[in-house]
Amino acid sequence: MSTAAIVVIGNEVLSGKVDDENARYLIRELRALGVRLERISVIRDDLAAIEREVREASAAHTHVFTSGGVGATHDDMTMLGVARAFGVALERHPELVRLLEAHYRDRRTDTVMRMADVPAGTELLGLGELLFPIVKVRNVHVFPGVPSYLRMKFEYLKPRLREKAIVLRQIFVNVGESLIADAMAEVQAAHPDVEIGSYPRFDTKEYRVKITVESGDESAVDRAVAALAGRFEPAWIVRVE
Amino acid sequence: MSTAAIVVIGNEVLSGKVDDENARYLIRELRALGVRLERISVIRDDLAAIEREVREASAAHTHVFTSGGVGATHDDMTMLGVARAFGVALERHPELVRLLEAHYRDRRTDTVMRMADVPAGTELLGLGELLFPIVKVRNVHVFPGVPSYLRMKFEYLKPRLREKAIVLRQIFVNVGESLIADAMAEVQAAHPDVEIGSYPRFDTKEYRVKITVESGDESAVDRAVAALAGRFEPAWIVRVE
Repeated sequence: MSTAAIVVIGNEVLSGKVDDENARYLIRELRALGVRLERISVIRDDLAAIEREVREASAAHTHVFTSGGVGATHDDMTMLGVARAFGVALERHPELVRLLEAHYRDRRTDTVMRMADVPAGTELLGLGELLFPIVKVRNVHVFPGVPSYLRMKFEYLKPRLREKAIVLRQIFVNVGESLIADAMAEVQAAHPDVEIGSYPRFDTKEYRVKITVESGDESAVDRAVAALAGRFEPAWIVRVE
Repeated sequence: MSTAAIVVIGNEVLSGKVDDENARYLIRELRALGVRLERISVIRDDLAAIEREVREASAAHTHVFTSGGVGATHDDMTMLGVARAFGVALERHPELVRLLEAHYRDRRTDTVMRMADVPAGTELLGLGELLFPIVKVRNVHVFPGVPSYLRMKFEYLKPRLREKAIVLRQIFVNVGESLIADAMAEVQAAHPDVEIGSYPRFDTKEYRVKITVESGDESAVDRAVAALAGRFEPAWIVRVE
């Protein structure tokens, strides 16, 4: 199963000036694609932090998606951070120069043309199809922070990322975690191919704990749900869905 | 100025089964308190990941707030992760034993009593005032993942965390970043005591870029805003607020 990490770059998210939409969008989309998201980091516009985070995420996960820090202003340092993460230099990419020249024409400045500088070894995805291509460096997709642009680019990538969908079943019980914890621990140990989660609720009388069982393998999910149900008193189970 | 990191622990957030409310709440509250949030990590219920993340966050920031993974089920491993981060053992805390016994009475099990196991050297805040005290290990506050509980505990902490408030001024301009990037970079370099951000919008005609200037020092913000305004054509400025 493929795994992923999201690296959100931007002081504006940490300071609450901008609400993060991108991680929330990617969480949903990756789940729908069957890619297991293993980590989200939100970090400052800080070169050393970007370098370190990207290097570690790239080594630990199948796909990395960064968001933010790719414009032309002083706080945009994602490209340099990604380059340093891989120990390569920034290079002015001729295809990006062409696109920026076509877009900015006589308004183009040295600062704007910096947006053509990408890490050596960059692959451009969607060139000619997207307004501006996706910058991919090894397994790292460098996305803009503007939500509509990020979505447009991710939509383009989706067919390449699709995995077997994750199957989720939920058991709602009317007893607290104290009564079911041992059974869950034992079933989890006996069924390592599924992931069992447990979520108490205190603001409804309908149930007290929601137990989730999920896996890419539907029959494994069925087996674990049956094992759990077999260990609970029948009266505890509100419903299974 | 104090700094902070948030570590959200839980597969349910990464898989999109539960929408993270806690980081969003803490972003707002820390901003209002004048504490600079420098990092958010969302990680899986994985002992090694918790250990590493907490160790690094504790070393790099004034305050660390963890959320999640503190119940009595098999996927709750935050306490052990925090203990390992500091190279200490888990110890059964007599005050927590007393509270759990009073709460669970004859429903108490070995599994439930595990919630009294905390890292050696734990400080309990709000004992006798809160329903269940805050577990603090060095500079790490271990919060539950249930949003209403986390909020109750954070409200209790607030008076201890308050710093000088951050002053924010915003300049809205009707030109793109390409025209203002150089001025912003120069003003940022000349005014290191403020933080200048730049946020293009594409879905309104009212302005094209919002420039933010912020600092704990109001007069520093005023100086930087004046320096920026002095470098822009007057017609570019839509408004300053």
